[in-house]
Amino acid sequence: MARIVLKFGGTSVGDVDRIKAVAMRVKTEVDAGHQVAVVVSAMSGVTNQLVGYVDAVSPLYDAREYDVVVSSGEQVTSGLLALALQELGFRARSWQGWQIPILTDNAHGKARIESINGEDVIASMQAGEVVVVPGFQGITTDGRVTTLGRGGSDTSAVALAAALEADRCDIYTDVEGIYTADPRIVAKARKLEKITYEEMLEMASVGAKVLQTRAVEMAMKHAVRLQVLSSFTNKPGTLVVDEDEVVEQELVSGIAYSRDEAKITLVKVADRPGVAARIFGPLADASVNVDMIVQNVSDDGKATDLTFTVTRSDLDRAVAILEERHDDLGYQNLTSDSDVVKVSVIGVGMRSHAGVAQRMFKSLADEGINIQVISTSEIKVSVLIAEEFTERAVRALHSVYGLDAE
Amino acid sequence: MARIVLKFGGTSVGDVDRIKAVAMRVKTEVDAGHQVAVVVSAMSGVTNQLVGYVDAVSPLYDAREYDVVVSSGEQVTSGLLALALQELGFRARSWQGWQIPILTDNAHGKARIESINGEDVIASMQAGEVVVVPGFQGITTDGRVTTLGRGGSDTSAVALAAALEADRCDIYTDVEGIYTADPRIVAKARKLEKITYEEMLEMASVGAKVLQTRAVEMAMKHAVRLQVLSSFTNKPGTLVVDEDEVVEQELVSGIAYSRDEAKITLVKVADRPGVAARIFGPLADASVNVDMIVQNVSDDGKATDLTFTVTRSDLDRAVAILEERHDDLGYQNLTSDSDVVKVSVIGVGMRSHAGVAQRMFKSLADEGINIQVISTSEIKVSVLIAEEFTERAVRALHSVYGLDAE
Repeated sequence: MARIVLKFGGTSVGDVDRIKAVAMRVKTEVDAGHQVAVVVSAMSGVTNQLVGYVDAVSPLYDAREYDVVVSSGEQVTSGLLALALQELGFRARSWQGWQIPILTDNAHGKARIESINGEDVIASMQAGEVVVVPGFQGITTDGRVTTLGRGGSDTSAVALAAALEADRCDIYTDVEGIYTADPRIVAKARKLEKITYEEMLEMASVGAKVLQTRAVEMAMKHAVRLQVLSSFTNKPGTLVVDEDEVVEQELVSGIAYSRDEAKITLVKVADRPGVAARIFGPLADASVNVDMIVQNVSDDGKATDLTFTVTRSDLDRAVAILEERHDDLGYQNLTSDSDVVKVSVIGVGMRSHAGVAQRMFKSLADEGINIQVISTSEIKVSVLIAEEFTERAVRALHSVYGLDAE
Repeated sequence: MARIVLKFGGTSVGDVDRIKAVAMRVKTEVDAGHQVAVVVSAMSGVTNQLVGYVDAVSPLYDAREYDVVVSSGEQVTSGLLALALQELGFRARSWQGWQIPILTDNAHGKARIESINGEDVIASMQAGEVVVVPGFQGITTDGRVTTLGRGGSDTSAVALAAALEADRCDIYTDVEGIYTADPRIVAKARKLEKITYEEMLEMASVGAKVLQTRAVEMAMKHAVRLQVLSSFTNKPGTLVVDEDEVVEQELVSGIAYSRDEAKITLVKVADRPGVAARIFGPLADASVNVDMIVQNVSDDGKATDLTFTVTRSDLDRAVAILEERHDDLGYQNLTSDSDVVKVSVIGVGMRSHAGVAQRMFKSLADEGINIQVISTSEIKVSVLIAEEFTERAVRALHSVYGLDAE
C-alpha cells in the first residue's frame, strides 16, 4: 500500500463527463489499495471567465478580492469530483484550502505555500476516505483567501505530497510525459522514462511548459517523486526523480527551445564600473526579467557593446525604460530584435563530460546557423539564434546527441 | 448615522454592469454617512448552472459537497462587488461565511443560521470599510460549508442585520415593494408604504414570493426593520415593521392568491377517533404539507367526508399514499382536483373588526363564485375556489375592501 497524490489539470476536468472519467482513473488507484489524495484545477475556461469578470469590474484590481473570485473555480471542481467518487461507491470529501489549512504568504495572486497541516487529511485517508483538494488556493495566516498564480495547482499537488509524505505525486496532463524534444518539431522525439529534477527545471525554464518551475523546485527540495502522464491514455509517463535514481545517465536528455525571447543591444556603452547596475537596476525595479547577458571586450577600454535578452512581452517596456535613461547611461544607440529563439541542450551527464558545448556549436555551424548569444549552466548550454532556424537547429541537435528514436 | 444592511438578489447582480450599478446604489448610502454591509446573491443563472453540474455528476448527491459547489456563486459576486466598490474609491472587502463566521446547523442544502459573530464585521465597518457578504452560505460548527436553501440570501441579510444590530435591512429586488394585490391582475393595485411582519408572513404563505418566509420570521423575532424595494428604480419601497409602527391600520392590507394548490376529498371516511391521525400521519412522514382541512359533520355519526389541500407538486404522491392505505382507512372513494386556487384576504385590522369574512363570502357569492373550502387565521381569511375565477375574485375583493387606487 502506498500513499499517492494525483493532480488533474483543467482539460482533464473540462466538463462533467471528464470529471467522471477522472473518478474512474482515481478508482484504479484506490482499488489497488492505495491511500489517495486528488488535487484538481478549475474546469477549463472557468478561470479565464472569472479573470474576465474581475478585469471588467476593476482593471487595477485588489488582488485579495481577485483571489476570492478566482479561487472559486477549483472549489467547484473539488466538490464535483468528490460527488463523482461517491457515485462509484467510495467515501470521498473535498477539503478547501481554508479547511486544511494550506497556509501561504500574503502575496495575493502569486502566493507561495508556507506550510500545510496534513493531520486532518491523513486521518481522513486512514479512515478510508478519498481526499479531494482544490489546487491553486490557500489562505494567509490572518485568514484571507490566496491563489498561487497561474499553473499553481502543480505546486499545490507537490506541496500536499510533501506534507502527506506521499510515495508519489502523479501530474495528469494532456501530454504523455517529457520528451527528448517537442514532438511537433522532431518526429523522432522519444518519451523519457526518467528525468532528473535539475534537468526538468532547465527544461521548464526554456519553454517546456509541462510542469511549473516552482512545483519542480519544491519536489526537488522535499524529494517528492513526480510522474508526468496523460489523463487521456493509459500509459506510464515520465518520472521526475533524484539524480541517484537515474542509473544509465545519457550525456544529453533533451533539446528544448523558447520562442518567448527578445534581444536588446546597447551599442558603445561607457565601459566603467557601475554601468551594469545602472542599466539592470531600473529593469529589475520594473520587474523586467533579464536572461542571457553578453558584454564584449572593449577595444579601447572606453566603450563596449552590451547584449541581453528579455521576454517578448517585456520588450517594449524595457526599451522605453532604457531610452528614458539614454543621457544617464550614455550609450551610442539601442537596437532590438524579437525574431530570435533560444535553443538549449540539457543533460546532467554533461557535468562529467567535456565537449558537449563544442559539439553544439559545430553542429549549428554545419547547418549554417549563426549564434548570436551563448549562455551556459552546469547542465545546460543555450544559444540565441534567428527564429527562422528553430526547427532546423532542434532537429540537428536531437540527431547529433543520439536522441533520435530508432 | 445609521448602520444598514442592503441585500441584492440575482437579477440585481446579473452581470458585470449590474454589479457596478449596485455599487453606485451602495455609494449613495455610504455617502449619506451610514455604515453599510451588503449581502449578495449569485449572478442570475449561476446557481442553476452549478446545480445542473451536481445533478449531472450525482443525481442523489451528498448535500455536503452540493453545498461546496453551489455556495461558490455567491463567493464570486461578493468579490466582484468589493472590487466595484473599490473602483468608486471606497475601502471594501468581502467576508465569506467561514471568515465571519456564520454558523448554521448541519442540515446541508437547507441549513438554518444559528449564530453570527458580528465582531470582526462591526470593527471593519467602524474602521470605514464597506462590508460585502455572500448570502446563502454558512458553515457548521465542525467547519463544513452549508447553504440555506433557495432564496436563503434574504435570511442571510436579516440574520446579519440582527447580529450587527442594524437600523434597517433593505431587500433590493425586481419589484418596487409589496402591493395590495398582484399588479398583473389588478390594475388598481397600490404599493403599500408599510406592512406588518404578520401580514407579510401571511402574504408569503399564500404565494407573494417577494420575501422568504424564514427571513420575515427572523426579522419579526429580532425586530429588524425590513424594506422591500426595487434595484431598478429610485423609489422608496415597502417597510415591513412591527404592528405598533403602523399608525393608521387599514382593515385589510391586501388580497393574495396561490395557484400552487390541489384538493383531495376522501368520501365517507369512518367517523371515529384516530382516523385523522391515520390519514395525516403517513402524509407528514412523506413530507407532504397539508394546508386547509375541512371535515363535514357526519349525518349518521358513522361516516364523514374529509377535504384538504396540498401543493400541486405533492398531489400525485399524496394520492398514492392514501390509495395504498385504502383498506386501513376504509373510505368509500377518493377524488382530487388541481384546478383550484386559494384566495386570501389579509389584514391585522380584522382582529378588532367583525364582518371581514362575511363581506368576503358575500362578495364572492355576488360574483357567482362557489367557495369549496374555507380557512381562517387571526389576520387572514382564505377560500379555495375554481382556478378559472382567480382574476374575477381578486379584483372584486380588492374593490370591496376599498383598496383600489383613486
